[in-house]
Amino acid sequence: MVVQSMPDASPVRWHLAHATWFFETFVLARAVPRYKPFHPAYEALFNSYYETVGKPLPRPRRGTLSRPTVAEVMAWREAVDQRMEDLLAGAPERVAPHLAAIELGLHHEQQHQELVLMDVKHAFSQNPLRPVYAKEPREQPREAPPHDWVPFEGGRVEIGHAGEAFAYDNEGPRHETIVKPFVLATRLVTNEEYLAFMEDDGYARPELWMSDGIDVARREGWDAPLYWFAEGGEWWEYTLAGPRPVRPSEPVCHVSWYEAEAFAAWAGARLPLEAEWEVAAAGLPVEGNFVESGRLHPAVAPPPPRRPALTQVFGDVWEWTESPYVRYPGYLPPDGAFGEYNAKFMCNTWVLRGGCCATPQDHVRATYRNFFGPDRRWPFAGIRLARW
Amino acid sequence: MVVQSMPDASPVRWHLAHATWFFETFVLARAVPRYKPFHPAYEALFNSYYETVGKPLPRPRRGTLSRPTVAEVMAWREAVDQRMEDLLAGAPERVAPHLAAIELGLHHEQQHQELVLMDVKHAFSQNPLRPVYAKEPREQPREAPPHDWVPFEGGRVEIGHAGEAFAYDNEGPRHETIVKPFVLATRLVTNEEYLAFMEDDGYARPELWMSDGIDVARREGWDAPLYWFAEGGEWWEYTLAGPRPVRPSEPVCHVSWYEAEAFAAWAGARLPLEAEWEVAAAGLPVEGNFVESGRLHPAVAPPPPRRPALTQVFGDVWEWTESPYVRYPGYLPPDGAFGEYNAKFMCNTWVLRGGCCATPQDHVRATYRNFFGPDRRWPFAGIRLARW
Amino acid sequence: MVVQSMPDASPVRWHLAHATWFFETFVLARAVPRYKPFHPAYEALFNSYYETVGKPLPRPRRGTLSRPTVAEVMAWREAVDQRMEDLLAGAPERVAPHLAAIELGLHHEQQHQELVLMDVKHAFSQNPLRPVYAKEPREQPREAPPHDWVPFEGGRVEIGHAGEAFAYDNEGPRHETIVKPFVLATRLVTNEEYLAFMEDDGYARPELWMSDGIDVARREGWDAPLYWFAEGGEWWEYTLAGPRPVRPSEPVCHVSWYEAEAFAAWAGARLPLEAEWEVAAAGLPVEGNFVESGRLHPAVAPPPPRRPALTQVFGDVWEWTESPYVRYPGYLPPDGAFGEYNAKFMCNTWVLRGGCCATPQDHVRATYRNFFGPDRRWPFAGIRLARW
Amino acid sequence: MVVQSMPDASPVRWHLAHATWFFETFVLARAVPRYKPFHPAYEALFNSYYETVGKPLPRPRRGTLSRPTVAEVMAWREAVDQRMEDLLAGAPERVAPHLAAIELGLHHEQQHQELVLMDVKHAFSQNPLRPVYAKEPREQPREAPPHDWVPFEGGRVEIGHAGEAFAYDNEGPRHETIVKPFVLATRLVTNEEYLAFMEDDGYARPELWMSDGIDVARREGWDAPLYWFAEGGEWWEYTLAGPRPVRPSEPVCHVSWYEAEAFAAWAGARLPLEAEWEVAAAGLPVEGNFVESGRLHPAVAPPPPRRPALTQVFGDVWEWTESPYVRYPGYLPPDGAFGEYNAKFMCNTWVLRGGCCATPQDHVRATYRNFFGPDRRWPFAGIRLARW
Repeated sequence: MVVQSMPDASPVRWHLAHATWFFETFVLARAVPRYKPFHPAYEALFNSYYETVGKPLPRPRRGTLSRPTVAEVMAWREAVDQRMEDLLAGAPERVAPHLAAIELGLHHEQQHQELVLMDVKHAFSQNPLRPVYAKEPREQPREAPPHDWVPFEGGRVEIGHAGEAFAYDNEGPRHETIVKPFVLATRLVTNEEYLAFMEDDGYARPELWMSDGIDVARREGWDAPLYWFAEGGEWWEYTLAGPRPVRPSEPVCHVSWYEAEAFAAWAGARLPLEAEWEVAAAGLPVEGNFVESGRLHPAVAPPPPRRPALTQVFGDVWEWTESPYVRYPGYLPPDGAFGEYNAKFMCNTWVLRGGCCATPQDHVRATYRNFFGPDRRWPFAGIRLARW
Repeated sequence: MVVQSMPDASPVRWHLAHATWFFETFVLARAVPRYKPFHPAYEALFNSYYETVGKPLPRPRRGTLSRPTVAEVMAWREAVDQRMEDLLAGAPERVAPHLAAIELGLHHEQQHQELVLMDVKHAFSQNPLRPVYAKEPREQPREAPPHDWVPFEGGRVEIGHAGEAFAYDNEGPRHETIVKPFVLATRLVTNEEYLAFMEDDGYARPELWMSDGIDVARREGWDAPLYWFAEGGEWWEYTLAGPRPVRPSEPVCHVSWYEAEAFAAWAGARLPLEAEWEVAAAGLPVEGNFVESGRLHPAVAPPPPRRPALTQVFGDVWEWTESPYVRYPGYLPPDGAFGEYNAKFMCNTWVLRGGCCATPQDHVRATYRNFFGPDRRWPFAGIRLARW
Repeated sequence: MVVQSMPDASPVRWHLAHATWFFETFVLARAVPRYKPFHPAYEALFNSYYETVGKPLPRPRRGTLSRPTVAEVMAWREAVDQRMEDLLAGAPERVAPHLAAIELGLHHEQQHQELVLMDVKHAFSQNPLRPVYAKEPREQPREAPPHDWVPFEGGRVEIGHAGEAFAYDNEGPRHETIVKPFVLATRLVTNEEYLAFMEDDGYARPELWMSDGIDVARREGWDAPLYWFAEGGEWWEYTLAGPRPVRPSEPVCHVSWYEAEAFAAWAGARLPLEAEWEVAAAGLPVEGNFVESGRLHPAVAPPPPRRPALTQVFGDVWEWTESPYVRYPGYLPPDGAFGEYNAKFMCNTWVLRGGCCATPQDHVRATYRNFFGPDRRWPFAGIRLARW
Repeated sequence: MVVQSMPDASPVRWHLAHATWFFETFVLARAVPRYKPFHPAYEALFNSYYETVGKPLPRPRRGTLSRPTVAEVMAWREAVDQRMEDLLAGAPERVAPHLAAIELGLHHEQQHQELVLMDVKHAFSQNPLRPVYAKEPREQPREAPPHDWVPFEGGRVEIGHAGEAFAYDNEGPRHETIVKPFVLATRLVTNEEYLAFMEDDGYARPELWMSDGIDVARREGWDAPLYWFAEGGEWWEYTLAGPRPVRPSEPVCHVSWYEAEAFAAWAGARLPLEAEWEVAAAGLPVEGNFVESGRLHPAVAPPPPRRPALTQVFGDVWEWTESPYVRYPGYLPPDGAFGEYNAKFMCNTWVLRGGCCATPQDHVRATYRNFFGPDRRWPFAGIRLARW
């Protein structure tokens, strides 16, 4: 609950406190007259990055805090939960102005639920004891179905969120764009396919890589996805169920955008544009291998319902796209602190789509835009190929 | 000719050698049977970044070479020029297969001519003696015309290069895209306008900045454009004509994309998309303040020919756009080493348009896509505002 | 118990585990036939730096371990304590060969008791909540006695440990050396005296400093001892009893060797040589303000028993000397792992003498040689002046 | 003349300018009424580290200066030489107060003559063209004489400079110290002996190394002396006469103190204390392989004049000692800028003795104390063993 294994990660205790902080800062302190915070210092301690509401503790120092203790944080959570319930049980006209912030807070907490699993996985993977977080469900091993392509017409299409249902600001405005005819792979790239890239010297061939990418790969000594390690002449990977041999049929996971891009170049293909992905996903049900399955690891692709058809579109792994994360035409960030939620990261990051095995199922949708820097490997992120 | 004042820059001698290397490696060694290179070690020493043709010397070490001397490099240049002339004077059918490489080599050398001026400016600015590179032409001071907006209809438009004339691979394929109606500023942002941003605490207000941008600004202590320094209660700037007080009416120059973006946010505007810029520039003559003027510094905007009309579109300063530098739909990098010319930098860089006062006039065109990382300040880069 | 607030520090849990590891590795595993370690991975996890007995976990990563938990470590301690008791209760001839290692282990654990207090102080000082570790005892405030000098004859003297009582290897062999006549200050330098140095611009005058020292002071922004902070126009310091205003009469504490050296130069004096200190301390009782007082902070010097006489020789703060930490003439490190205990740090470190308010009283003696790098400020270290 | 190949080194042009600066700043500006400096900016540009006479240019930036040109620096040197000659030709009573500074300036320039050779060697070694600085004299190859020991009685001895002849401040005061009986090796350690250490895995055995030393060796990837490289299954070294195979009988050179110390530990010996070295060298003539020989590389030890006797005491390589560089008892740095000449480096550096093949012969003496940080490898430094 307390350790921080790298600057990008946070202690679980911090995530718990931060999600609480969100409701206290953005709901209770605004909705409750003369609201007295639970503790005057928690405001700054558990602010993640909102510079408009104070001076956050630098992220790399989150793991150096020995106080408040886990018990103190849990007491805070309970107190804030109670006050939130009191607020919600009160006069509807007092709650109404805060409903948007409450809804945002719930989605925000879901994001941190996924981050908790990402960060625990990283911390445990660094521990020489390699602890098990949760046993994996018993399942029959199966083969991945053969790789195939699904064609799409493209043309003048619409993407982006519209309507009343919740979406983050960065998903709108809905707008038109032009997409050339394209094909998408029916399923995610498997470990077996990725191993072929590795064995073909993929990590050492600069012509496959972005210039920045090969630099970071060399500097960090990358020669396989994060969490993979060689032992006894075989590739193993650390999973939340502990270390085990890499299974060839499972989707490759924990690769950076740089690796995804280099793999695609090696395979004579490319990553999908986010508009292509969204057009293809638009009509599909949001079903798949989410956190609720308890598997906490991407699963082998199911047999396709008909040939060819897309599978694994939602869940399993976030799919890197070829699209830099920038604002949609006409987008304006919201006023105030929520303007910092998404907009200030629209630089040097890339869009991922579809959710993963650590995402709550009701958190994602076809228009959902996740984003990470191109060198980040600790998200549950993988590869779907595209071609023109 | 020999010093390197930062990792991004190169000694002038290196630029001279590298442009020579290009013709020897990509033309002579291929066109001349049993070609014997001038010196066996120059291949690796003066390769810039082509990993497919050997192992380049790391860029930050270019300034540590005391050999070959300037005289030796000039002798090499003369020898290669002579051999190029011999080749060109020879049988046309022997030259024909190499014409594309020769043309690319000439445009490539023009790029390095601009880099020489950028790098000399940086080196001289670091020298406490602040040497003068070239005196500036005598001119009457004048005011910048008032700021105004030019409206554009947008809609379904075409951008990108097509046709027989030379263009870099990254300018194509020509393709359709959709642009909302937009307005562009009639002229570049002036120093006076930028000073207002500075005085309004622009460098210290994170809500105006990308998250990465404010981090680098803090870490590097940015509080003004590169080459500006405060002296006697007044802002001065180092120019290639030596240090002099900042002139309010001149375009602001040597700002990063981060600063341009923050300025635009502060001004209630944004940077142009590259498609917007290109649509607006498409019909205009490529005229303006280029290297041929000898001014080597952006000039005050001329009075507009009619109201409102775009001025300073070409020359003066490269204009940062809001578009990340990525491939156009359907783009495929060329095979072989020339595939590294542009494609491997399509990550974490942003597009600039229009050329600058250090660019040869016949080097640019409306479809030309220059690119730099968002934190780079040594290009002659400035700001044109846009709005929806 | 879990956090690590800087690379030099370790989590308390780690100290507890490491002291246990020492007994298991160097006593039980050697003394008990077919000894089965409590847990096979603890060997490497809690090895501090003994390269001859395996591959230690890098120190900066000690704070990233979430397993074993505190409870697991405490269970290990109990198990090892029990086995140690069993061993000691057994046949004396089986214990005899291990008595030296057991004695070393006990002194080693005392060193880690002091480190626990140093590391907790650092971690708590970094925490914006500034927690209190232990309330300080109630005491009458008093003035420091006036500063005076005690003269010593010097000449041909003997220093170093000899005899049967326990001492670390680095305290011997006892040997002759020559010392010029010298004087030592009767008491430690006070905060008030150190403030005069600060107010005389001591941190900004390079002529007072070692070249390396002023570099680190500038790079780290030092302008006062560690744990001091300015608030409301006044200097405060963080103590294990929480933050409170700096008390002028107390000895200055948490200064580096660089600061001690610069202060001495400013005061027209110097630091004592370790031979001078030892000659002066040789006859004195090991009494003073040690960890047993519960004060955990240096105390105001007592009135001297006669004039002039040395006070505060033992306890309060470790006293930086002018002597680099190197081996005594004829010293040879012990064979095996214990050879790493002291010898491999005899480079770029300086000797401190006398123990401090966090040291167990029966841990120190006149010949005891502590050592730290010249830039370390988290030990309870202060200054006694000397002159020829 | 212009390049700087690492932060420790300086361009040759800088050395030339700096030696000139010394005479202008410390002699002419003080001795000549209303002295007008040759150029007002040279004062700061060519100050090395004297913080009491202004703000020096940071050393790592010395290689970024393109102005003043070499020709301008040579003109300055001539002008200053001329003014120095004028001064010396003038009234003796005007010269007298400056004789000490002039003498210091001449010895100072000798030190920079040696640094020029060190820095050129480093720069050339980094250049893939591996230029030759000077051909080596033709010589008959010969074997090194067998290794042997010379015994010394030790006891109460005197070291340090006394008398009228020139010496640096750090060589005094002459004082008594006690030295145990010891033996010194008759000659320097050879490459062949050092190769045996390398082949016995010396660089990978932490028990032989200081803790700091093995860290830097690992971080920097040391596996041989500086300038050695493996080619065709054989060790080569870069010398000022160009690259050539390592000659087994020559003294090992360009090792750090860490390597010298580890080698000595491996050999069951140690490095000499500076007092031991000085006592042994005290009566010997200052003769050997100095810069005047033109060899610019250490030479094979001569046959000893009698058995056993010390050879190679002066010249060939600086000999690392086991003594940290600290002040002698009673030493006080001179007032003013010359106080910075030596005293502020008495921390984290180690004493070397005897001069080397790049030192002017009349520059050294038995009491001469050179010093470098324990990780420095670009001095011409080697190893003589000692034992008790």
